[in-house]
Amino acid sequence: MSHIAETPAPPYYAVVFTSHRTDGDHGYAEMADKMVELAAQQPGFLGIESARDDVGITVSYWADLESIKLWKANAEHLKAQKLGHEKWYSTFKTRICKVERDYGM
Amino acid sequence: MSHIAETPAPPYYAVVFTSHRTDGDHGYAEMADKMVELAAQQPGFLGIESARDDVGITVSYWADLESIKLWKANAEHLKAQKLGHEKWYSTFKTRICKVERDYGM
Repeated sequence: MSHIAETPAPPYYAVVFTSHRTDGDHGYAEMADKMVELAAQQPGFLGIESARDDVGITVSYWADLESIKLWKANAEHLKAQKLGHEKWYSTFKTRICKVERDYGM
Repeated sequence: MSHIAETPAPPYYAVVFTSHRTDGDHGYAEMADKMVELAAQQPGFLGIESARDDVGITVSYWADLESIKLWKANAEHLKAQKLGHEKWYSTFKTRICKVERDYGM
């Protein structure tokens, strides 16, 4: 169950990961859950939102660019990224963004 | 059918809109399609990605902040935003972001 992330006042950072999956699970769901759990333990992690229908969109929020860099280089995460490229995603795009303003209801 | 947006080299801007829907359609689906079509006609529009399961995430991409401001103030879009607040969304968050870097496969 994904919720709207409760992030602090901007500025902070967002990583927008958009992907198309290959057919079949091939261990994807288990790894995805594990990576969300692991990301939440990283320094600078602020929250994560995720939805998938035709396309999958996962947005993770971070305090600064250094936190994003460290998470990208995390050993377990590197293994998951490798499997993602080899097996789970037919195509993806990652966008590193600075959140300048937010509002909501 | 939503695809990964084909955006130019950064920097550009992203609007991440995350929402929870109320129950029932109440004209939502028709208006959502109409707004995607209308957004695509606006100056500075670069693309849009959308997915919904527990939570809905729509990311629209724009050339600059001025384009985002104009789209937010578009008369038809203002009507849709009002209905969104009154009928379609129980909660939402909009985040205005500068895309600093991207990569993909």
